[in-house]
Amino acid sequence: MNYEAAGLAVETTGSPPQNALHVESQQASSARQIRVERHTPAYWRVIFDNPPFNIFGPETIPQLDAVVTAIENDPELKVVVFDSAVPGFFLTHYNFTPPLSASTSLPSGPTGLHPLPDMLVRISRAPVVSIAMIRGRATGVGSELALASDMRFASRERAILSQWEVGAALVPGGGPMARLPRLMGRGRALEILLGADDIGGELAERYGYVNRALPEDELDAFVDVLAMRIATFDRQAIADTKRLVDFASLPSDPEIAIGWDAFITSVQRPEAQFRIKQLMELGLQTSGEIEGRLGHYTETLGQG
Amino acid sequence: MNYEAAGLAVETTGSPPQNALHVESQQASSARQIRVERHTPAYWRVIFDNPPFNIFGPETIPQLDAVVTAIENDPELKVVVFDSAVPGFFLTHYNFTPPLSASTSLPSGPTGLHPLPDMLVRISRAPVVSIAMIRGRATGVGSELALASDMRFASRERAILSQWEVGAALVPGGGPMARLPRLMGRGRALEILLGADDIGGELAERYGYVNRALPEDELDAFVDVLAMRIATFDRQAIADTKRLVDFASLPSDPEIAIGWDAFITSVQRPEAQFRIKQLMELGLQTSGEIEGRLGHYTETLGQG
Amino acid sequence: MNYEAAGLAVETTGSPPQNALHVESQQASSARQIRVERHTPAYWRVIFDNPPFNIFGPETIPQLDAVVTAIENDPELKVVVFDSAVPGFFLTHYNFTPPLSASTSLPSGPTGLHPLPDMLVRISRAPVVSIAMIRGRATGVGSELALASDMRFASRERAILSQWEVGAALVPGGGPMARLPRLMGRGRALEILLGADDIGGELAERYGYVNRALPEDELDAFVDVLAMRIATFDRQAIADTKRLVDFASLPSDPEIAIGWDAFITSVQRPEAQFRIKQLMELGLQTSGEIEGRLGHYTETLGQG
Repeated sequence: MNYEAAGLAVETTGSPPQNALHVESQQASSARQIRVERHTPAYWRVIFDNPPFNIFGPETIPQLDAVVTAIENDPELKVVVFDSAVPGFFLTHYNFTPPLSASTSLPSGPTGLHPLPDMLVRISRAPVVSIAMIRGRATGVGSELALASDMRFASRERAILSQWEVGAALVPGGGPMARLPRLMGRGRALEILLGADDIGGELAERYGYVNRALPEDELDAFVDVLAMRIATFDRQAIADTKRLVDFASLPSDPEIAIGWDAFITSVQRPEAQFRIKQLMELGLQTSGEIEGRLGHYTETLGQG
Repeated sequence: MNYEAAGLAVETTGSPPQNALHVESQQASSARQIRVERHTPAYWRVIFDNPPFNIFGPETIPQLDAVVTAIENDPELKVVVFDSAVPGFFLTHYNFTPPLSASTSLPSGPTGLHPLPDMLVRISRAPVVSIAMIRGRATGVGSELALASDMRFASRERAILSQWEVGAALVPGGGPMARLPRLMGRGRALEILLGADDIGGELAERYGYVNRALPEDELDAFVDVLAMRIATFDRQAIADTKRLVDFASLPSDPEIAIGWDAFITSVQRPEAQFRIKQLMELGLQTSGEIEGRLGHYTETLGQG
Repeated sequence: MNYEAAGLAVETTGSPPQNALHVESQQASSARQIRVERHTPAYWRVIFDNPPFNIFGPETIPQLDAVVTAIENDPELKVVVFDSAVPGFFLTHYNFTPPLSASTSLPSGPTGLHPLPDMLVRISRAPVVSIAMIRGRATGVGSELALASDMRFASRERAILSQWEVGAALVPGGGPMARLPRLMGRGRALEILLGADDIGGELAERYGYVNRALPEDELDAFVDVLAMRIATFDRQAIADTKRLVDFASLPSDPEIAIGWDAFITSVQRPEAQFRIKQLMELGLQTSGEIEGRLGHYTETLGQG
């Protein structure tokens, strides 16, 4: 669905985020990777648009933070759909080009967590409904943002979900060790995390990785109908009901924190550096073949 | 299956419940809505029979309480099946006709909870096996009683499950925010609670809302065979095994209590009153069209 | 797949377990029931080979303990597959022939638990990946070892899983009350434990009892490909990722301890002795008909 072609208003975030100055100074040096489209005051779309692969890096963090802050503070918003404008990619792994210090030097978010996991736990706790509509690859941060969302709907034919990190000698950092077992049980969570392979839409539904995998040509309409339905409901009833589900189902922030710390430790280990270097030489972040078949290529790497 | 036609004994609850006086005084002013049929001393059926919709109200509470007390105290009972005698309805939402005080003035149950959530947590903790056999609509209290039961089996063609409350600006009160995420994970639980739509038998099985959805003409026999099997087993082994599953899987009573309190708060809010009034004018509690397609009609309401 | 025929090395456990002396003295009086085949230094197969039924008894415990100790301590190992060499049986119930004291007199394991649950929790916490490949019956201890493993893959046509214990007036002792509800939710866990019936491969997948049920002729290749893939990954990344999933998903040791205590109590009750005696007279531990259709025969027993 092309919203600009459909004549819908395409707006940038208009509400004043708490850390607006910081966001603007960051955005001055980065191209805009995320757009917010307000279908109605109650229903927004957040569109990842960082071609060719929707890679997520330290430069993306202030942009997503501004969006999450707007989601938290808008008094009329009820439902947000996360979507992608990049064919073949919902949102994928962390950007390995910037130095690690570009990530580790970022100030903590409101929860006290590093801003990446901070934003994810804030999406889960926001008083509005978040829906990840997954078409193409949702790997690494992409999978983690989907898992932090309240619901996930995937294209049966075109969705690929994965936590690829162990295949690169990394520990995932955005919370999947906490979220996946609570969603689908320990066995399937360990298969996803330790098998670290690409998971198609049908299996993702069977495992509970997504709520449902819908036929490609039904996905947009299904998610839109659900979002419009929720947008007619009462904001307070949504928030109060969700808060009690949060109590029953969300991991604690410290549990998320130790996962992030384990990622930062892992990325500095020689074995991870050795494997990421091989992947970069193969074409990580530059080749559609590598980015599109990451599950396969991690298996071909030499061991340090 | 028509038990009377089949010549089976149809009995009312014979054991003396602890609060028998209170029950009888209540029952004097209310028609009997629940029947207990003792197939054998070890296997009972509890039949909801309050046509035309099996609506559950404050007047139903003492009747169900007497049944739950009998279930807790009968020394020979091993398995109870919850069933309905009303075509199209297993058990549905709370009765909005009596004043709120008719609900809030009821004395607490043995757990210290309001008697509605009290009965539900006592069903979960009873030393016998409870099975909800769902044919027709299980909405609101009906879904909550099914979720409090140990197992749920549904008609693939004729079961409809839902937590419709958010669609009426209510927070559900009988525990589904606590029970659904533990049963099926956060994502699908939030879809059921915040989408608040009707869920058919097949999807209910896929989501784990029920153990299995069976073809309509196999459901009775399947549940009967399972119940008769369990009735041959040792009562103590059942109780001791279930107690350890309870430890691993049941929410705490305070978690249930905050859900009930959130419901009572929500029902008094103007937006809920506004939406319930609209639904009553459309035919809630009087029209089979409204009661049968509640998921649809909540979406048509004006916003206050 | 016949590894000897395929020319692969077939080795016994070569690394010195911490309690080697004890193990050797026990093994002197018992036939070897478990073999370890090292496909590569990173990938082992542990083969249950105690025909005709792969019954697990107190005499098996030191043998499995030696294997688990080797798995914990081998510095190169990354993935272990549990498999069976006995047609029709993965691993089945506890051996009722030895006196109870042969089980209760065994010294506690490193966790402080009785050595049977001790080994199971150590498999779950080991820094390597464990995969149960289930072909034939996994009942009682067999199901419990599969549930303690990180992942479970089953033959769609030939796997049978069950916790049969309640059918013999026993409480299961190896942790399924703790593990099953966390894996598949309370309702399906209670059906498996209190229905105590045989579960085929297809239903086991639908319930999440196994990760996937694969067609019989694809199972070996699937598990082998997955194990070889994991064996190329970094050992530290596997261990660090798994540890955080453990935090989110494993029951505590005391929760496992109370399950074992409940089993020991139950097996001494007259009703359990009465039912086990009937099963032994029918052919438990001697007849393939009884061992192969245990779910059926428990239902035929007289009640004491």
